[in-house]
Amino acid sequence: MEKEKLLELLSDMSLEEKIDQLLQVCSYYYEKEGVLTGPENQAGFKEEEIKNAGSVLGGGGAALLRKIQENYMKTQPHKIPLLFMADIINGFRTIFPIPLAQGATFNPELVELAASISARESAAAGLHLTFSPMVDLVRDARWGRVMESTGEDPYLNSCFAKAMVEGYQGTGELKEKGKIASCLKHFAGYGAPMGGRDYNTVELSERTLREEYLPAYKAAVDAGSAAAMTSFNTLDRIPSTGNKKLLRQILREEMSFDGVLISDWAAIEELINHGVAQDKEEAARLAIEAGVDIDMMTTCYCGNLKKLVEENKIEVSLLDESVLRILELKNKLGLFENPYKDASEAEEKELFLCEKHRKTARELAIESMVLLKNDGILPLSENDKKIAFIGPHVDNKWISGVWSIFAKINENVTLEEGIKNLNLRNVTFAKGCGFIDADSGIKEYHDKQNFEEDSRQAEALLLEALKQAKAADVVVMPLGEIAIQSGEASSRASIDLPKVQMDLFEKIYKVNPNIVVVLFNGRPLTIKALADKARAVLEVWLPGSEGGNAITDVLFGRANPSGKLSMSFPYSVGQVPVYYSEFHTGRPFVDNLKDVKYLSKYLDIPNAPLYPFGYGLSYTSFSISSISLSQKELTKEGNLTASVVVKNIGNYTGKEVVQLYLQDKKASVARPVRQLKGFEKIQLKPGEEKTVTFSITEDMLRFYNINMDFVSEIGDFSIYIGNDSQTQNREDFIYIG
Amino acid sequence: MEKEKLLELLSDMSLEEKIDQLLQVCSYYYEKEGVLTGPENQAGFKEEEIKNAGSVLGGGGAALLRKIQENYMKTQPHKIPLLFMADIINGFRTIFPIPLAQGATFNPELVELAASISARESAAAGLHLTFSPMVDLVRDARWGRVMESTGEDPYLNSCFAKAMVEGYQGTGELKEKGKIASCLKHFAGYGAPMGGRDYNTVELSERTLREEYLPAYKAAVDAGSAAAMTSFNTLDRIPSTGNKKLLRQILREEMSFDGVLISDWAAIEELINHGVAQDKEEAARLAIEAGVDIDMMTTCYCGNLKKLVEENKIEVSLLDESVLRILELKNKLGLFENPYKDASEAEEKELFLCEKHRKTARELAIESMVLLKNDGILPLSENDKKIAFIGPHVDNKWISGVWSIFAKINENVTLEEGIKNLNLRNVTFAKGCGFIDADSGIKEYHDKQNFEEDSRQAEALLLEALKQAKAADVVVMPLGEIAIQSGEASSRASIDLPKVQMDLFEKIYKVNPNIVVVLFNGRPLTIKALADKARAVLEVWLPGSEGGNAITDVLFGRANPSGKLSMSFPYSVGQVPVYYSEFHTGRPFVDNLKDVKYLSKYLDIPNAPLYPFGYGLSYTSFSISSISLSQKELTKEGNLTASVVVKNIGNYTGKEVVQLYLQDKKASVARPVRQLKGFEKIQLKPGEEKTVTFSITEDMLRFYNINMDFVSEIGDFSIYIGNDSQTQNREDFIYIG
Repeated sequence: MEKEKLLELLSDMSLEEKIDQLLQVCSYYYEKEGVLTGPENQAGFKEEEIKNAGSVLGGGGAALLRKIQENYMKTQPHKIPLLFMADIINGFRTIFPIPLAQGATFNPELVELAASISARESAAAGLHLTFSPMVDLVRDARWGRVMESTGEDPYLNSCFAKAMVEGYQGTGELKEKGKIASCLKHFAGYGAPMGGRDYNTVELSERTLREEYLPAYKAAVDAGSAAAMTSFNTLDRIPSTGNKKLLRQILREEMSFDGVLISDWAAIEELINHGVAQDKEEAARLAIEAGVDIDMMTTCYCGNLKKLVEENKIEVSLLDESVLRILELKNKLGLFENPYKDASEAEEKELFLCEKHRKTARELAIESMVLLKNDGILPLSENDKKIAFIGPHVDNKWISGVWSIFAKINENVTLEEGIKNLNLRNVTFAKGCGFIDADSGIKEYHDKQNFEEDSRQAEALLLEALKQAKAADVVVMPLGEIAIQSGEASSRASIDLPKVQMDLFEKIYKVNPNIVVVLFNGRPLTIKALADKARAVLEVWLPGSEGGNAITDVLFGRANPSGKLSMSFPYSVGQVPVYYSEFHTGRPFVDNLKDVKYLSKYLDIPNAPLYPFGYGLSYTSFSISSISLSQKELTKEGNLTASVVVKNIGNYTGKEVVQLYLQDKKASVARPVRQLKGFEKIQLKPGEEKTVTFSITEDMLRFYNINMDFVSEIGDFSIYIGNDSQTQNREDFIYIG
Repeated sequence: MEKEKLLELLSDMSLEEKIDQLLQVCSYYYEKEGVLTGPENQAGFKEEEIKNAGSVLGGGGAALLRKIQENYMKTQPHKIPLLFMADIINGFRTIFPIPLAQGATFNPELVELAASISARESAAAGLHLTFSPMVDLVRDARWGRVMESTGEDPYLNSCFAKAMVEGYQGTGELKEKGKIASCLKHFAGYGAPMGGRDYNTVELSERTLREEYLPAYKAAVDAGSAAAMTSFNTLDRIPSTGNKKLLRQILREEMSFDGVLISDWAAIEELINHGVAQDKEEAARLAIEAGVDIDMMTTCYCGNLKKLVEENKIEVSLLDESVLRILELKNKLGLFENPYKDASEAEEKELFLCEKHRKTARELAIESMVLLKNDGILPLSENDKKIAFIGPHVDNKWISGVWSIFAKINENVTLEEGIKNLNLRNVTFAKGCGFIDADSGIKEYHDKQNFEEDSRQAEALLLEALKQAKAADVVVMPLGEIAIQSGEASSRASIDLPKVQMDLFEKIYKVNPNIVVVLFNGRPLTIKALADKARAVLEVWLPGSEGGNAITDVLFGRANPSGKLSMSFPYSVGQVPVYYSEFHTGRPFVDNLKDVKYLSKYLDIPNAPLYPFGYGLSYTSFSISSISLSQKELTKEGNLTASVVVKNIGNYTGKEVVQLYLQDKKASVARPVRQLKGFEKIQLKPGEEKTVTFSITEDMLRFYNINMDFVSEIGDFSIYIGNDSQTQNREDFIYIG
């Protein structure tokens, strides 16, 4: 439809119809079940409101959504179709690893492919938009929702923001088959709640917000994300969902975002809890004035906008703006021509978990796994050893993360199933203990949801495990968090392994210290005690549908791990927040100056995390040469290249992530010790070498200077190129302007 | 001297002489020993520079300082005397409890008295200025320097800022006998280092800085503090010591501070480490442009200002400004007339630890102690029970805190000595274990400094302790941190008791569970496991010279504890930062809504700290009536009074701190759940009652609104009056403007 026609349509709509477009309700009103993501008892819609709401969230499936659309269209005076949205975070039915794990791939192309598969399956299931990517910067492992982010670095997150948006939407038209709209979230700063407690106050200077938190949102906007979602938190004490400066000035004007802006679940009504709105009417006014187009699941808009317009408290043009953006999105998706878009039961059957999709899921899971420690015990041989697989996660089906709302858990391949697919002779399996401690805070929920625990007594489980461990040459221990320990509203003050699992580890260690730990989790955990003793630790996150097969591939060397941490693993929880791009301080800690007491440090632990950002081992070894610079000076319009020769000096083919960091050594404000500015993932056969070249240009040196201008400043810079964020492989250059 | 004369003097001074005035060197150049508070190897002064520096820090003692002054004056062309400064934090020779403990007294009058005693002793020892009060707001117990702050609340800190400044300086003239100048510190925001790691980056919005962090500095300025010190940290990525906006605009213009501004130790040179200055010359330029008058212990000023002036890179008027401020301070102290001020060996003898001073130290220590738990076991009877005192702190002399640089440790009264002063029959004493764990990070330093540890084997210590515990009716366990585990550069990632002490506790508990814990520490600790089992926990901090006597007074009911926490005790370290004046969030946790998953909370621990701000028990009980309001509406010029009747309904005379909190229920920005706005400490005999009345006026409602104007907004408010920050004793009123 032409823009003109849309404007005609808009001008023909009644005030009530317009307001209907601004409401989004949950599909459980249609299907009487679904996913609730907030206090549900607040809603209290009238039947008419639900019937005429312009969009629906949370439902999926071609048959259901076609039927809802069909019924809906019958009663709509202007035949404006419904928009179906849902949280497709790491897959619809083919489940990929959680986003934090995807970040660890350092492979945006592969992540883009996965997003396109998610889009394809979602579109077949009748969906039009996914509430993804979440591009919130995260630096506090206590926050449960780090699992939904790609990590701690603005540049890395920006790369994945683009990859995911382009994966979902394609780079052509949204109406194309298999494409869905993306919705970047959560604007802005949601990833920095105080104390790591979800929804909590965010305390950021405007400088840090702009320099570190906004870039990934900007990257998603620049990639063309059709929609954006507000965040639950306050910034500068103003809740995002009513924050005019944030939404109108920064998002719309500065970033040129012209898509649909949607509140997070009930976030408009929550302006009352935040204490900035007296009632729903004021909440509605603040949100519409701030430019929020869609009210997700509250009666604020539908119950108050009419009154506000009629009493001249807001201009109707505010509504028109929002309605037009929604109509435009529906139009871009081609819904006026085909309100069902790609919904197809036949395609669902064909696509869901098809071989091609499973293959990508397996590949992505492999690339996301991070080998944290290995004394040579890995890879395991498929033939000659007795291997005992011992740990509660050994046959755990819940490995897709909590945001895989359309996943069928039973379709996930567990580690035990993956191993059994190999048909090895000398393997045994035992759980050894339960998943969680009684005081984990999720026991009740866990039990109610009927997550599989072995019903045998702890003692029987342990005896079986000890017997198997004694009889084995190697023990592989699948340990970690269960899925519901991470994700929304799942913050943990302790990020240790459950005590019951650490106890199992210690007991097994006494009878057989040849332990390989396979770590399942949705966040960085504090694993110092474990890592000190285990001979190898393989981080597998929550790996999705093909998890068990992918882990098996890696354990037995059929694939070589190449993941790099997208978020630092703290030494202990008392160290958070910890991340690589910190500042020097005036008294930087220097390790060999033992007698200088007055340095920035802890008494009891190092400043450095246990495993830093960008870190991850391989079964092979790579040598990285010193850096060759094309010249020592960079000009404003110029281009300096920095090259290294990377060589596989080990015995396995493998992939290495070559990482470029820059440091601005002196500026008008303090600058990070280093910042990721580029990376390249390359594959090399044993003995093979390759030159990796990075181009350094002036725009990579820009930052907010003392006057808050985004500029570069002349002076000295350092270049680091290596295979993690702590590399000391350095060259210096001068930017001469 | 008249101002005119000072100006004449200034105009007569050579450039070199001016620059000399701006340098401060450490007294160890004179006495070859002293207290170093920063990397000393950086200095590298020329002999002439040291000889002519305008001020000296760190030395004390009438004989020494008189001699230094005498020699100095001989060579000074204009006979400008030296200014002697030092860190007199909680006492010169009579040592009071650490400032965090002083905060817990909620008794500014008593703290003012203590500060005046510190001043009197310091003045007798030849000093002119103390680097106190530290009024930095602190909310992260990992930071070691919380010991030097009065706590987490802007209002409480402001009250103590005023009390301390007036205690040191008096309210008359600085030249009066026994008065010294105060130096507020550290401007600004030093108390919020990221991760609790000293000197680390501070991340604050300007709103939070102004509303929560600046008020206590402002209170110290308003009280007339003659000097101020810059902080080590960056704010908005700009190191304070070179932060023009912070120092010139906020401190000098907005706050009207016209005193001497001094850098913290080597902080000017540290502008290089921060990465904002290329070299010492640029560091000097940035600092003098920002308005820093005195360069503490670097060659930045003395080595570069001349060149900067001669090359016209800075105006000489910048120097004149600073020199004049220093001359004015010297003049206010009367040094031109009497360069020795009150330095007197005779008075030192008379004053140091005199009976009157000890009495105040004992009283302040008593009032600072916080009874955290008591099931009725306290107070102990002096007669009928066998009491075993078991714990490494039982006879520990190091109880004055690390900033008591002139204290003589052996003059401190230990717990054992305090008890022995009572001449009880049935008491025994045992250490039970050492102070610290091998991996505490201070073992080496601890051993080198020869802190007293019992040299017997751990086993022998334990056996002795168990034997005594078994034989006793009650066990009193003095446990906690040693002094060097808190203070500058003593951040801890774990804030548990040392493991060796928790082990001792568990072992004693098994043979005798009637345990009263006496807790020594410089910061809030995580003591949940201990507090669950102990029958009583008495927090005594680092109580100073009269510590042992004061603890004895409280344990045996000769004094009734009345301290209230000035800083929340976290439930676990994974909960920091935790403080009472947080924000509601959009999804506030409600305890009885068990089925609502999506609330702001941790899975594994409560949101609330173990013990909140303002909390503390007594041996008696106080009833506090519901609140009587004079009216329900407050006008702009009006005055609303809120009264409660407080009654002692127990059996001991005691003091209660009645606390007033206000909540702004709806505003243009999110507001804290409550804020302390007043308190009154009253004493009541058993059965006695008293009406406590607070006056509420418009200025108490002001905050930075959405436009960053400091105003009040009309609307609903709640008043809470009770005996801790969690009281539910509430009344509401409306501010109608």
